[in-house]
Amino acid sequence: MSIRVGIVGISGFGGGEALRLVASHPSFELVYAAGEGSAGSRLVDRFPGAPARLADLVIRKWDPAALPKLDLLFTSLPTGSSAEALARVSGDVKIVDIGGDHRYAEGWAYGLADVWPDRIEGQRRVANPGCFPAATLTALAPLLAGGLIEPGNIVVDAKTGISGAGRGGGDSRFGYAESNENLLPYGLLRHVHMPEMATTIERLSGGSAAGLVFTPHLVPMTRGILATVYCRGRATTEQCLEAARRFYSGRAFVRVTDRPPQTKWATGSNLAFVSYAADPERALVIAMGVVDNLGKGAAGQAVQNANLICGLPETAGLEGAPVWP
Amino acid sequence: MSIRVGIVGISGFGGGEALRLVASHPSFELVYAAGEGSAGSRLVDRFPGAPARLADLVIRKWDPAALPKLDLLFTSLPTGSSAEALARVSGDVKIVDIGGDHRYAEGWAYGLADVWPDRIEGQRRVANPGCFPAATLTALAPLLAGGLIEPGNIVVDAKTGISGAGRGGGDSRFGYAESNENLLPYGLLRHVHMPEMATTIERLSGGSAAGLVFTPHLVPMTRGILATVYCRGRATTEQCLEAARRFYSGRAFVRVTDRPPQTKWATGSNLAFVSYAADPERALVIAMGVVDNLGKGAAGQAVQNANLICGLPETAGLEGAPVWP
Amino acid sequence: MSIRVGIVGISGFGGGEALRLVASHPSFELVYAAGEGSAGSRLVDRFPGAPARLADLVIRKWDPAALPKLDLLFTSLPTGSSAEALARVSGDVKIVDIGGDHRYAEGWAYGLADVWPDRIEGQRRVANPGCFPAATLTALAPLLAGGLIEPGNIVVDAKTGISGAGRGGGDSRFGYAESNENLLPYGLLRHVHMPEMATTIERLSGGSAAGLVFTPHLVPMTRGILATVYCRGRATTEQCLEAARRFYSGRAFVRVTDRPPQTKWATGSNLAFVSYAADPERALVIAMGVVDNLGKGAAGQAVQNANLICGLPETAGLEGAPVWP
Amino acid sequence: MSIRVGIVGISGFGGGEALRLVASHPSFELVYAAGEGSAGSRLVDRFPGAPARLADLVIRKWDPAALPKLDLLFTSLPTGSSAEALARVSGDVKIVDIGGDHRYAEGWAYGLADVWPDRIEGQRRVANPGCFPAATLTALAPLLAGGLIEPGNIVVDAKTGISGAGRGGGDSRFGYAESNENLLPYGLLRHVHMPEMATTIERLSGGSAAGLVFTPHLVPMTRGILATVYCRGRATTEQCLEAARRFYSGRAFVRVTDRPPQTKWATGSNLAFVSYAADPERALVIAMGVVDNLGKGAAGQAVQNANLICGLPETAGLEGAPVWP
Repeated sequence: MSIRVGIVGISGFGGGEALRLVASHPSFELVYAAGEGSAGSRLVDRFPGAPARLADLVIRKWDPAALPKLDLLFTSLPTGSSAEALARVSGDVKIVDIGGDHRYAEGWAYGLADVWPDRIEGQRRVANPGCFPAATLTALAPLLAGGLIEPGNIVVDAKTGISGAGRGGGDSRFGYAESNENLLPYGLLRHVHMPEMATTIERLSGGSAAGLVFTPHLVPMTRGILATVYCRGRATTEQCLEAARRFYSGRAFVRVTDRPPQTKWATGSNLAFVSYAADPERALVIAMGVVDNLGKGAAGQAVQNANLICGLPETAGLEGAPVWP
Repeated sequence: MSIRVGIVGISGFGGGEALRLVASHPSFELVYAAGEGSAGSRLVDRFPGAPARLADLVIRKWDPAALPKLDLLFTSLPTGSSAEALARVSGDVKIVDIGGDHRYAEGWAYGLADVWPDRIEGQRRVANPGCFPAATLTALAPLLAGGLIEPGNIVVDAKTGISGAGRGGGDSRFGYAESNENLLPYGLLRHVHMPEMATTIERLSGGSAAGLVFTPHLVPMTRGILATVYCRGRATTEQCLEAARRFYSGRAFVRVTDRPPQTKWATGSNLAFVSYAADPERALVIAMGVVDNLGKGAAGQAVQNANLICGLPETAGLEGAPVWP
Repeated sequence: MSIRVGIVGISGFGGGEALRLVASHPSFELVYAAGEGSAGSRLVDRFPGAPARLADLVIRKWDPAALPKLDLLFTSLPTGSSAEALARVSGDVKIVDIGGDHRYAEGWAYGLADVWPDRIEGQRRVANPGCFPAATLTALAPLLAGGLIEPGNIVVDAKTGISGAGRGGGDSRFGYAESNENLLPYGLLRHVHMPEMATTIERLSGGSAAGLVFTPHLVPMTRGILATVYCRGRATTEQCLEAARRFYSGRAFVRVTDRPPQTKWATGSNLAFVSYAADPERALVIAMGVVDNLGKGAAGQAVQNANLICGLPETAGLEGAPVWP
Repeated sequence: MSIRVGIVGISGFGGGEALRLVASHPSFELVYAAGEGSAGSRLVDRFPGAPARLADLVIRKWDPAALPKLDLLFTSLPTGSSAEALARVSGDVKIVDIGGDHRYAEGWAYGLADVWPDRIEGQRRVANPGCFPAATLTALAPLLAGGLIEPGNIVVDAKTGISGAGRGGGDSRFGYAESNENLLPYGLLRHVHMPEMATTIERLSGGSAAGLVFTPHLVPMTRGILATVYCRGRATTEQCLEAARRFYSGRAFVRVTDRPPQTKWATGSNLAFVSYAADPERALVIAMGVVDNLGKGAAGQAVQNANLICGLPETAGLEGAPVWP
């Protein structure tokens, strides 16, 4: 029996990727799509490769008061714009919010699906982690849980493809000619993803205060995030790898690798790759995490969370291998 | 019941894409992989995102005398290197050859799957079209079949992403620094794909002699082919579009669009997009065809052909929507 | 003695490239810069790498009634927006218009500098050719002048980097994520550059009527244009090359090459590369022209034209070799 | 009077960029070019946009015993391959070694030109800094010299375009299709550039021991390096900026900026951009340095060093503004 699904924010990159995954999900049936920029269009006008059976679905203007009968709603809206509207959605409708408004909000589970699936199962409201936290925390969780690094001294140097900046209204800073062959740091010392990372680090380390430096960079590629994380700890490389192998044992989507991970390994998939390099004499541990910012960093993890709260197999609709090259 | 599948040439881009598609195909079970450069490695060493159940499959050196029990073999080898070896494969094993050695060879069907599926069903040996012919012929077929253009006066200006040049041995012409921000024509007046295009044009036009100019270009992107084809004919744009809509009516993978098609619409999928622009006063018809060179241009069409010769639904394993952006 | 120069439209790509060239020109002194989006900024705020001596120049709002004393003005404004304002600039100020409003307008020379410098010398108003015409006409001129091809039967398949689409207001179609790994034709059968190409072809061929098909394509790279031009004619490849070598003998900026030209050969320079491939039996001549769309296709040719009308050496300020890779 | 110049290693990217700069240098005359892969070719065969006057120069096989009369030699050879040969070059010939064999070697000045020009002037043998050190040390020098950060606790997270990996023999890891849309760390905890960085840090900080973590990353772009450097210190952002403004006061090539620097600001130029962000409460200083890896990171700084040792103006031949976009 199929689950009736809606997607809000389908004009954006996160919503578009949710569409791709929902369309090929064995238990989901898309019955509602809403988008600011594309309301009134048919789905095929915005997504020329959309499956034929969905081609004529008309994109609506998002209105929580005018929803069809739904079991599950994915929302992917700009941060700051969704809290009030989502509060008006019936509690009968499960929600996975890909946007940033409900992370560690009351009544919402924080959907770090590979790390704590048990905190997500049975919930009806899940806030998807941000793309940078998804890459960073997946790499750090085994070290924090195992007490291998100090939570109070973590430097995250993260790099994202440009789809991570969102589709927005055509900001010329993200124009092709301006962005190609260009690399830059931004949001120094004040990125919006810091609080959820700090809170999660504290939870994973049993309550110790997090000390976190986070510098995101924009890289001239469409998809992909790499977090290179500098930590203090006395573990060896092998101890870190082994801790991660144990931590993620039996988990479907995290690959522990002894080679430095590459963003292209994950493109189009819900996989995360983590690796480690340590120098115990200097009390240094470098943790590396790679995800597709629109996969595990957004729509992929959202579908994984939806599977968890709908009682489906966690991997349903997420088994496609990465697209390479 | 699953079909036992082998892939030869898995180190190359075409073979790697075949792996991705076979791995998620509902009826295929990969039991054999061979590759020149990667023999002896485990699959996961070459494809870090490979499904866990295939991770430990060891890649073999290709040897037609040492095959396991197989039902179906995909081969993707450099042109000129496969004819003798494939002749030694048992007739019990169905073969789809992605490489260039058997196109219009005796005993092999030419697998232009969207155009003449009936010529492929029931065969045991199928030669997959080249990537340029896949884009070009899919766009031209409705016009040729409908007598809307002259087969003797066709100019094909085709553009491919760099994966179309193959992985080879690390030719520095295809290095990132040399290829990025670079665009060039090559193979002028003598590209290897011309004969199969000419032969197919003649078949589609009922035997009239083909007159063909074909200029491929290398474009700084990984995947994608666009063929812009200049033809002589008196049809209007709408007549061409309507001819294509009729020709591909009921066919799953060809989308007729009234906007100029974009290569990114097809990325990672087996879709082809065709469109037309005509100026009847000048007897000009421009036909445009877009495919992913590794999808419809290689492994996607190969799986489609395999479905046809195995009696499976034509779309099995090929329903994933394109990856965008 | 230095020539006092102004640039209007400095926020755009063409104006920005004019700034780069003017800044290192041995006889030019930049004394005025105007730009819509950047009025009120200092030059260094928009161009962080601008020469120190120009850093504090304040960008003005363009106003033909409020010009400082100038000898020479480069204008690079959106087509349709400059005719009235430029009519109000004193005849004492020489103008090279990089924009599209004065090509073949009365009182303006058409500045195809490598082809007819003598028509430009001594003028006070020069309309710079469009970027596509620059690539196309440079390749065709020797064939047309030599009667080697038919002017009535020319198919131009042109490909441009995305800076050719202009900086505009951040059109999301030209966003990085949307444009990267994407290739598309546009403006079929109705591009604004067609009339100037047709008129020039007629002039070069002694008055015969031009018959022209022109299809531009957008390629995922920042700079560069390649025009692949299909013509009818009985010349051999060597005859075409030889005609071009003679035609451009002694000219500084056009390189005749027997290899297919690559866009990256020209990046950052005012060079044009032309080559030819012919099949006399089929009466086919393929002409290829490569330029940097912001160099020879815009600001480079503009400086060359300025040199011609200011009585300077044609190569002044334009001798920098291309940036490679 | 012109200085007779030779370039060894002209087939590589560093040597090629040296050619571009030497060709437009007002005091240099190129009389000798040697290259492994291109010996026997004319310069124009390898560099189609080379100045006409140099087109026919024949590239030689590198042989220190067969040099023409030279005043100055640029060498750009793979690390490990040049020490013996350069020892055989006459002391009358000044050498700037872009390669890695002579950094902090006896008898060779370390050519960190913007930081200590006085240690370079009057020398005859200069070892050019590596590309990563050029970006990193230019950003750190004012902080170290001013005692604003601890030399014993420095984390360098550096990102380079792929030309930094060198041209090599066509390593397929650097193929376009493999590298595009891919980002990866490499050489963890053991990159060859670490010793020269550590030594220089110690010199700049008056002898204190350097403690250095260095992680390079490969970014899908051709040119550009960004070093993001995490340091311990109590200075404010403004104090760091002010220290840098004073340190580089009167220096031509270093721009201190209060915005995070972008690699594209430097493309094709010898400029370096540095900026800082500090959080005194957490004793954190982030220093950022941007260079073109082939400009300030290789051939640009080499020409600057050559100017210094030849008694020329430091900026000779290096005044071209960056190419943007």
